[in-house]
Amino acid sequence: MVNNISVEKAATSKIHNVDFDNLSFGNTFTDHMLVCDYENGAWNSPKIVPYGPIALEPSSKIFHYGQSIFEGMKAYKDEADGVWLFRPLENWKRLNKSAKRLAIPELPESHFMDGLTSLLRLEKDWIPKNPGSSLYVRPFMFASGTGFHASPADKYKFIIALAPSGAYFSGKVKVKIEETYSRAANGGVGYAKAGGNYAGQFYPTQLAVEEGYHQVIWTDDNNHEFIEEAGAMNVFVRINDTLITAPTNDRILDGITRKSILDIAQAEGIPAEVRKISVKEVVEAAKNGSLQEMFGAGTAAVVSPIAAFGYKGVDYELPEIQNSYASQLKKRITDIQYNRAEDSFGWRFKVS
Amino acid sequence: MVNNISVEKAATSKIHNVDFDNLSFGNTFTDHMLVCDYENGAWNSPKIVPYGPIALEPSSKIFHYGQSIFEGMKAYKDEADGVWLFRPLENWKRLNKSAKRLAIPELPESHFMDGLTSLLRLEKDWIPKNPGSSLYVRPFMFASGTGFHASPADKYKFIIALAPSGAYFSGKVKVKIEETYSRAANGGVGYAKAGGNYAGQFYPTQLAVEEGYHQVIWTDDNNHEFIEEAGAMNVFVRINDTLITAPTNDRILDGITRKSILDIAQAEGIPAEVRKISVKEVVEAAKNGSLQEMFGAGTAAVVSPIAAFGYKGVDYELPEIQNSYASQLKKRITDIQYNRAEDSFGWRFKVS
Ligand SMILES: Cc1ncc(COP(=O)(O)O)c(C=O)c1O
Ligand SMILES: Cc1ncc(COP(=O)(O)O)c(C=O)c1O
Repeated sequence: MVNNISVEKAATSKIHNVDFDNLSFGNTFTDHMLVCDYENGAWNSPKIVPYGPIALEPSSKIFHYGQSIFEGMKAYKDEADGVWLFRPLENWKRLNKSAKRLAIPELPESHFMDGLTSLLRLEKDWIPKNPGSSLYVRPFMFASGTGFHASPADKYKFIIALAPSGAYFSGKVKVKIEETYSRAANGGVGYAKAGGNYAGQFYPTQLAVEEGYHQVIWTDDNNHEFIEEAGAMNVFVRINDTLITAPTNDRILDGITRKSILDIAQAEGIPAEVRKISVKEVVEAAKNGSLQEMFGAGTAAVVSPIAAFGYKGVDYELPEIQNSYASQLKKRITDIQYNRAEDSFGWRFKVS
Repeated sequence: MVNNISVEKAATSKIHNVDFDNLSFGNTFTDHMLVCDYENGAWNSPKIVPYGPIALEPSSKIFHYGQSIFEGMKAYKDEADGVWLFRPLENWKRLNKSAKRLAIPELPESHFMDGLTSLLRLEKDWIPKNPGSSLYVRPFMFASGTGFHASPADKYKFIIALAPSGAYFSGKVKVKIEETYSRAANGGVGYAKAGGNYAGQFYPTQLAVEEGYHQVIWTDDNNHEFIEEAGAMNVFVRINDTLITAPTNDRILDGITRKSILDIAQAEGIPAEVRKISVKEVVEAAKNGSLQEMFGAGTAAVVSPIAAFGYKGVDYELPEIQNSYASQLKKRITDIQYNRAEDSFGWRFKVS
């Protein structure tokens, strides 16, 4: 338990300048943020301060050696203005898994949970109620300690910032199965939510965008033989009515949406398999008509149906489908998130 | 040509507080830095300003998506107080190679070269003359643009900071040949000087340090079969009097020291091969006595002899050797860098 998180209130609120009916994703920020410093071998008490610039020495290691990790969560508001999180402890655990791999000191549970809930209670008016909107919650941590020596820093900052947001994708998603570039190495940091994993995806994604796709589906870096995940989503396919997703490993982010969907599928009697998916299998299933659906799953994108995929210059359209698993699973998970249905899994977490 | 780089002078100099006889590596910074902003699709003119904190929005993409790259150079002072750089255009070219892979806008040559030389002329009193010391030059570039959307930023900062520094390693270097973790993926960003490549090395390096080593020698991520490079150095071995180093590829940084050493070896009649080096070959050569030397090569570490390597829990000591290639090559390269000998390669660049 972190006692009395100090709050320095913003002089004025920006909330009245915000058009909650036309929110993009992650470009509007609330009035306050949570800040917590690591120094002298320990995490200080988190503080709530006005959202604003961070001053860093030019030799801070964040600028040089990529010690940076983050999480992505959402806060939801129900009809009665109750505020909810979805499996927040999973984010805390994953933050620390990422921290360990990047040689960043782990954060105590209470700093994370008490900081997060205090900030959300203060900022609850910022949680949009429009359908498809939510308050995107961005915990992040980086090396603030200094020095041009390639070694871990001695100081870190943990921050939580909040961004009322609309949908991540607008419209149909068309993906390219990658044959040249890779997202992660065996024995690397792909399973961590490390900043560097994202920057490395931008250039190959730009190439895909130039070819008319929205996202890259990453494949293994040995032979580009197996489907792994997308930019900020895990990937599911439905072949002959079976839902399939790749097993997590040290190259793939262990998505909270992904594992929730697997649990929901089981509860709803959807046959599901966690196993390697070869590109060949997907292409053949697309050709012979047994590939019924493909979708991405992640906190930001929720469940995003994939309309087509490209591979070796050929585009494969997915059929328009009634009663898709994607819509069934999306309904169930968002009903839990927005407190519109019973939560038999115990995933919902009441903030206020 | 960048016209009139504006200079905002520091009110006072810190130079008299610095003990130039006891410099560590990369912890002391000069009075000024070069700053250059990218916005509205173009790089502004670089400016020289007092060295000091940089203020960034919490949603700046550097904190979230790892768009950060850097370079490492040194400025050298000769007996007559002449100031020199070593192959600076190679650093500029590599910076832009890194930039491209990380979807960061490339920097014009004049911004880099005019900015660098102007800054060095202003700060030339900071270049140490003590043997083994130099002014470490750190150009770096990162995403300052904002937003919680995993996509390239629209604003960037390019900065050059200077750090008078002593030796990078003190004493003998003992390395561990890595069998579990990896530095880079095929098709990834290993060949770029991207921040994220370094953070990913820290944890495996800490494990190696706990076992008594200083550095990890990275191997390919498929089977850990071939030797690639070390933390901030390329690696050379000498077996049966032949100098061998791995070919560069998309997992290995194309080191300027490495390629200079290959050219020097040729000029000095040292037989050299650029080819894959299997761990097996090195271990066998160590066992049968044909492994005569191993050393790392890089701007920071110059040429650093390796005294022993560990593999699968066994340590292999390298012999103490007279007339080592390491010392011969180090002498020749540093004689060129410090303007102590003729530079038949045309590598030295006069700053003032
Ligand atoms: C690379 C990657 N994969 C998958 C996901 C989905 O994970 P989660 O469902 O926990 O948001 C994310 C986003 O968080 C991600 O960044
Ligand atoms: C990963 C890595 N390899 C090799 C090198 C050596 O390159 P250079 O000789 O250009 O300094 C460096 C340092 O710059 C490096 O960071």
